[in-house]
Amino acid sequence: MRVLGVDPGLTRCGVGVVDGVPGRPLTMVGVGVVRTPADAETGRRLVLIEQGIEEWLDEHRPEAVAVERVFSQHNVRTVMGTAQASAVAILCAARRGLPVHLHTPSEVKAAVTGSGRADKAQVGAMVTRLLRLDAPPKPADAADALALAICHIWRGAATNRLQQAIAAHSPGPAARTAAARTARTQESAT
Amino acid sequence: MRVLGVDPGLTRCGVGVVDGVPGRPLTMVGVGVVRTPADAETGRRLVLIEQGIEEWLDEHRPEAVAVERVFSQHNVRTVMGTAQASAVAILCAARRGLPVHLHTPSEVKAAVTGSGRADKAQVGAMVTRLLRLDAPPKPADAADALALAICHIWRGAATNRLQQAIAAHSPGPAARTAAARTARTQESAT
Repeated sequence: MRVLGVDPGLTRCGVGVVDGVPGRPLTMVGVGVVRTPADAETGRRLVLIEQGIEEWLDEHRPEAVAVERVFSQHNVRTVMGTAQASAVAILCAARRGLPVHLHTPSEVKAAVTGSGRADKAQVGAMVTRLLRLDAPPKPADAADALALAICHIWRGAATNRLQQAIAAHSPGPAARTAAARTARTQESAT
Repeated sequence: MRVLGVDPGLTRCGVGVVDGVPGRPLTMVGVGVVRTPADAETGRRLVLIEQGIEEWLDEHRPEAVAVERVFSQHNVRTVMGTAQASAVAILCAARRGLPVHLHTPSEVKAAVTGSGRADKAQVGAMVTRLLRLDAPPKPADAADALALAICHIWRGAATNRLQQAIAAHSPGPAARTAAARTARTQESAT
């Protein structure tokens, strides 16, 4: 399964592509950052992010896209920019019919380090180890995008097994929905 | 000048097109709501909003787009949806090179009613009067979109006059920027 991870931001949007299945060594396909000038108008910045994400989708043809879920606890201005950038990433993926999944920062940290409260350095170190890189990817947004993709490959598989178990044991409407979801996930994984 | 006003929302995105210049009676060109099903995935909903906004831009060819500025004081979940919907509207306009302006809810209320703290009914009543309609447009999101467009026609003109005055009286870098901005606004208004 090939996943594009996106760590959304107006100034720096981290992007990372990882190939893999749970239980096997993972492979980094590409990593980078889509940047937009801080002094440009919001509309122009969103257009640049759209172009950047489209290029990554065109070049690497991922089967799923994992985007960091945005919360609004933090600085108002930053959060709005992050929410706008994430909307563009979600839109680009959905337009192509790709499944899009949102993961919270603590889900991502827990997936790659074992702790939902790990710091940036720890996440960077584990991404380096799991993808067998020579050094942590920089900037941190790029490493976070790879961590999102890894989290998605591992969690997606777990969710999939859970849905299959539910579908197999309870033949109600919930099971049909779960089965449909599983079928969709499997299609996108082939 | 023809302006498309957008009151962003994931469930209901109000859209309204108004023709006019300050000091002359305004004309409503069209009003409506782009809706998306609440049970659809976020990506699908953003794609539907994009399609809806594109249809309005194609049909009415506005010269500028006015979008409500989103704040994050309110309910977290609602604000994120609103920020995402507004990002799609801004993106659609910017992709066509249209100027996009954000106005706060109190700027819009102050523009059409004289008070930044006016309620929905008051805004609806003034929109009805200013556009010479038989009844207030419904739902409120549609009336708010028209109010945004009216606000933009009136405020845009004021900003324009201010920039021309600055450009005429202070020949520094600020004046050049203001002059450039004025020129751009005028181009887009012809």
